[in-house]
Amino acid sequence: MSGGYMGKILRVDLTEGKMADVTLSEADRRQYLGGSGLGAKLLFASTAAAADPLAPDSPLLFLTGPLTGTKVPLSGRHAVVAKSPLTGIWGEADSGGTWGVKLKRAGYDGIIITGKAAAPVYLWVHEAGVEIRPAVHLWGKDTFETDEAVIGETHKDAAVACIGPAGEKLVLLAAIMNDGKDARAAGRCGLGAVMGAKNLKAVAVHGTLRPPVADPERLDALVKQVVPQIVEKTRAFRQYGTSGGLMLAEKMGDLPIKNWRIGVWEKGAEKISGQTMAETILTGNYHCYGCVIGCGRVAKQYFPPFAGVDGGGPEYETLGMLGSAGLVDNLEAVAKANELCNRYGIDTISTGSAVAFAMEAYERGIIDEQDTGGLKLEWGNGEAMLRLVELIGRREGIGALLGQGTRRAAAELGGLAPEFAIHVKGLDFPAHDPRAYSSLAVGYATSNRGACHLQGFSYAFERGLKSPDLGYPEPLDRFTVEGKGVLAAKTQDLMCLFDSLKLCKFILNGGIDVHDMSDWLNAVTGWDTTVQELLQTGERLYNLKRLYNVRCGVSRKDDVLPMRILTHPRREGGAGEHLPALGPMLNEYYRYRGWSEEGIPGQKKLAELGLAEAGVSL
Amino acid sequence: MSGGYMGKILRVDLTEGKMADVTLSEADRRQYLGGSGLGAKLLFASTAAAADPLAPDSPLLFLTGPLTGTKVPLSGRHAVVAKSPLTGIWGEADSGGTWGVKLKRAGYDGIIITGKAAAPVYLWVHEAGVEIRPAVHLWGKDTFETDEAVIGETHKDAAVACIGPAGEKLVLLAAIMNDGKDARAAGRCGLGAVMGAKNLKAVAVHGTLRPPVADPERLDALVKQVVPQIVEKTRAFRQYGTSGGLMLAEKMGDLPIKNWRIGVWEKGAEKISGQTMAETILTGNYHCYGCVIGCGRVAKQYFPPFAGVDGGGPEYETLGMLGSAGLVDNLEAVAKANELCNRYGIDTISTGSAVAFAMEAYERGIIDEQDTGGLKLEWGNGEAMLRLVELIGRREGIGALLGQGTRRAAAELGGLAPEFAIHVKGLDFPAHDPRAYSSLAVGYATSNRGACHLQGFSYAFERGLKSPDLGYPEPLDRFTVEGKGVLAAKTQDLMCLFDSLKLCKFILNGGIDVHDMSDWLNAVTGWDTTVQELLQTGERLYNLKRLYNVRCGVSRKDDVLPMRILTHPRREGGAGEHLPALGPMLNEYYRYRGWSEEGIPGQKKLAELGLAEAGVSL
Repeated sequence: MSGGYMGKILRVDLTEGKMADVTLSEADRRQYLGGSGLGAKLLFASTAAAADPLAPDSPLLFLTGPLTGTKVPLSGRHAVVAKSPLTGIWGEADSGGTWGVKLKRAGYDGIIITGKAAAPVYLWVHEAGVEIRPAVHLWGKDTFETDEAVIGETHKDAAVACIGPAGEKLVLLAAIMNDGKDARAAGRCGLGAVMGAKNLKAVAVHGTLRPPVADPERLDALVKQVVPQIVEKTRAFRQYGTSGGLMLAEKMGDLPIKNWRIGVWEKGAEKISGQTMAETILTGNYHCYGCVIGCGRVAKQYFPPFAGVDGGGPEYETLGMLGSAGLVDNLEAVAKANELCNRYGIDTISTGSAVAFAMEAYERGIIDEQDTGGLKLEWGNGEAMLRLVELIGRREGIGALLGQGTRRAAAELGGLAPEFAIHVKGLDFPAHDPRAYSSLAVGYATSNRGACHLQGFSYAFERGLKSPDLGYPEPLDRFTVEGKGVLAAKTQDLMCLFDSLKLCKFILNGGIDVHDMSDWLNAVTGWDTTVQELLQTGERLYNLKRLYNVRCGVSRKDDVLPMRILTHPRREGGAGEHLPALGPMLNEYYRYRGWSEEGIPGQKKLAELGLAEAGVSL
Repeated sequence: MSGGYMGKILRVDLTEGKMADVTLSEADRRQYLGGSGLGAKLLFASTAAAADPLAPDSPLLFLTGPLTGTKVPLSGRHAVVAKSPLTGIWGEADSGGTWGVKLKRAGYDGIIITGKAAAPVYLWVHEAGVEIRPAVHLWGKDTFETDEAVIGETHKDAAVACIGPAGEKLVLLAAIMNDGKDARAAGRCGLGAVMGAKNLKAVAVHGTLRPPVADPERLDALVKQVVPQIVEKTRAFRQYGTSGGLMLAEKMGDLPIKNWRIGVWEKGAEKISGQTMAETILTGNYHCYGCVIGCGRVAKQYFPPFAGVDGGGPEYETLGMLGSAGLVDNLEAVAKANELCNRYGIDTISTGSAVAFAMEAYERGIIDEQDTGGLKLEWGNGEAMLRLVELIGRREGIGALLGQGTRRAAAELGGLAPEFAIHVKGLDFPAHDPRAYSSLAVGYATSNRGACHLQGFSYAFERGLKSPDLGYPEPLDRFTVEGKGVLAAKTQDLMCLFDSLKLCKFILNGGIDVHDMSDWLNAVTGWDTTVQELLQTGERLYNLKRLYNVRCGVSRKDDVLPMRILTHPRREGGAGEHLPALGPMLNEYYRYRGWSEEGIPGQKKLAELGLAEAGVSL
């Protein structure tokens, strides 16, 4: 075993109630790292293309990374991986908080769960052993209540990842939440429904083991060197959270407004901005484990029944999707919607998208008050939005339709509805607009889990970020087309590293570059990884996830964008009339990736990345 | 009444069996000219947005233009106009031959038909009167047989426009054919089904009246001046027909190959080219009335049951859609398919598209031999293609599905099928590729009747054509994006003039420009039209048709292209990797047109074009 990376995975079969430990080979550890990269390797090996994501044999993986629990800053994240029941392809979601670190301290790098318990259970993973415990009494509880109850039954310092009523009811927007009312979320791809389908209410973790580090002195020195710079460069994040950028996003033409139909919402943006939040409902900020930034918000609730209670406040994405996308400018209402999503355990991004979609369907007369159970789904109606979030969380009324995601809802409604379901491959857009940053067009179109800003983070390089290690010593112009296919591919590979090492991407805003990551990884593991090797590893992982999707039927035909984004300009505001030329960027992207004209990684590329030897094939 | 334009329209109500003559006002004649422009004015005034195109009260219009029947070269065309049952929006189709001239010689500029006869009838329009005659004995006959029978019952020199079995059975790809086995077709938009829905089998016309000309000497002089130049410049057209350009189209990356999936088919193209046709099945060429080019083909049939019979041979569009689009390289088979389409009365373009679509669905396993009734719909299978054409014409088996057009067929098949239904607004692409000529992207996306090269003809200006009158003294580069929104708009306006004056567009290849058209029009009518007025008239007519569509629900959301054309390059061949950037071209197009951001002509534009005064409003 190498210096600091145990490579120990817990396997749990809930049908049989059996458990086993698996140790990763040294080669697998170095080639797939951990997190969603390792998840791709494990999922690829264990699921058939036609597998039903909600069937018992569909695996659900919780994974930390080699840096988790070490002194590396911003390394307190974990990944959840499964075939997505929302999209039918590669599914991954990512969460912060303390859960990953505590799993590591219990002695595990990850958990693979298969099977389905006969009745609701939770998993209790600690140093002394692993237990499958009954959870019938927890079924129906929201995620905050579940967290409290499970901690009460296990250990006061345990961390709990769990589903709320939505996951239990197989709502396809269901998230897996952790850290109780601090409300960290593995939100995207509907993985909470996979957990629900297994009758698995929660996974509680706790331990005191310290992950081994090959060269602790070197790691200490490396970390000490960069922390002041990170702290300095991320001051605004600490002060206003991710939503500190919301007014700027509106100004740049990046913020979704009225379901991506219009360009400006200046006064509304100000009302729900991080700055306004700081002056009103904010009561503190939250740090994930090992974080020196603290972008997380703690906010007070002003709506019953939990008025006065503090908890995780809304992020930029939540404010964009549940606020501006539906023209809801009532910050307290959006904060309440955020709380509802957290308690029910549903993704705030896709839920917000579903609400905005429903508002547009209502405006166009495709659904009416009879369909909504009397709700007047007018733009900006915060009360109706809140009620709709509840219905989605409970899978009731029109919420049952919307909780399947806008792609399925639109197909069921028919007519014009598919035109304003704003998704790629079934995953709804997050709150960033490809009309404002060209690279997002090709990034969203090709992203392995569907429309996602975090699987590329390329737009950061179009608004000021630099990475000499990646070949970007200077920021890029945001509207140009040339070079953006390459940017999207390079940053997707880089993000695969973040998602596998389990580092927070905001560390890039702290001035960190790839060589820092490679230094940290070497100090922890004792390896001699180079920047070049690391970037190739990112490429390997990205290609592996693509291959998983190819097996699910994905090809170039699926690498698309909604027509609204291609042909309907924001017109007013910072993005003006800009419409991204997706086709040329896709050409550049495939060529750079060395994929076939149909978007399929070929044998040559597989061999180059060591995937052919690893037995990966279509 | 002005010099040479009678402006006399026949109104026929088939339900009541009533007829009346209507005389157009001088203002209407000058503002809407004739053909499909006048048709737009008349249709707009008489149909509600929600009208069912196949209902008795849905009007069907046959229209000539002010130049029809005069000595103006290439003026032997007529228009058919109705709300399209295929697309649900503005429908127009255009045909050559002798029918239009003979209607004019019977004393009419056009016919408006409403109502539905209790049993099949045909209309006999001649100098001495108009008769509604029983056609029960003709029902079921193909168009060649119908033509012969109706001529036998009316006048040996009558021209007959009629439907075949497809129109009778309301096949949505049904055409209205004229001139018997010379087989001229008003093919697009399914207008044959409108005729069938009225129980109207045929409209026979004959007369000896000469349309009045205000200044015959001037017209003679003008025509004499240009004819030698037209003859000279269109030599290749005469020799090889439109399909003389097929090999070049393949080389340029313009020809549809394998349902728009691949870039080259060199040997196949040669086998079905006009050059090969000239050496094999060609027996003569055909001139529409007044034509000095004679691009029409006469070809011998080699397939039973009509082997040895001469008739209208396949055009470029037919060879592209029924040949290369399905990889069928058997010229005799395509000629036979052309004959079948002509006899059944179905559009060769949309039928070819439906066949290629079915072949792709078969390849992908979406339909199988059980669905096709045992047909092995493999690429290039000419026998299967022929059988499929028959099934579509007869509305039998899988032909019943495909005869609704690929948009509806794909929606019914579901899954991936909509991805490879290559249409805009329900009208299938003709055999020209927007990846080869940028202007076609924005032209197809915005064309009033759906995907159409002839409603813009803009690609001609990207491959050598010039028009100083239009502001194009030099040809344009075919791949550039800038200026192509303007080109598409300008050429759409120009084509509105052609479609209203009822001039053949190939006269442009003869070196004719807008001032010639204006000179001819003035000589015929005695007006003082300028090039500027004429171009504004074109703009008026284009906007009027757009307004008709807006009333049907069309807006910017419908001005789209299939994702395949936007993101899937031909790669090999002359178009290489080029993919058109539709969004930016649309922006330019709407701005040039002075339409709203949603693609709606506003009150200011309506007023400028004199449409507001004319009572046109939404």
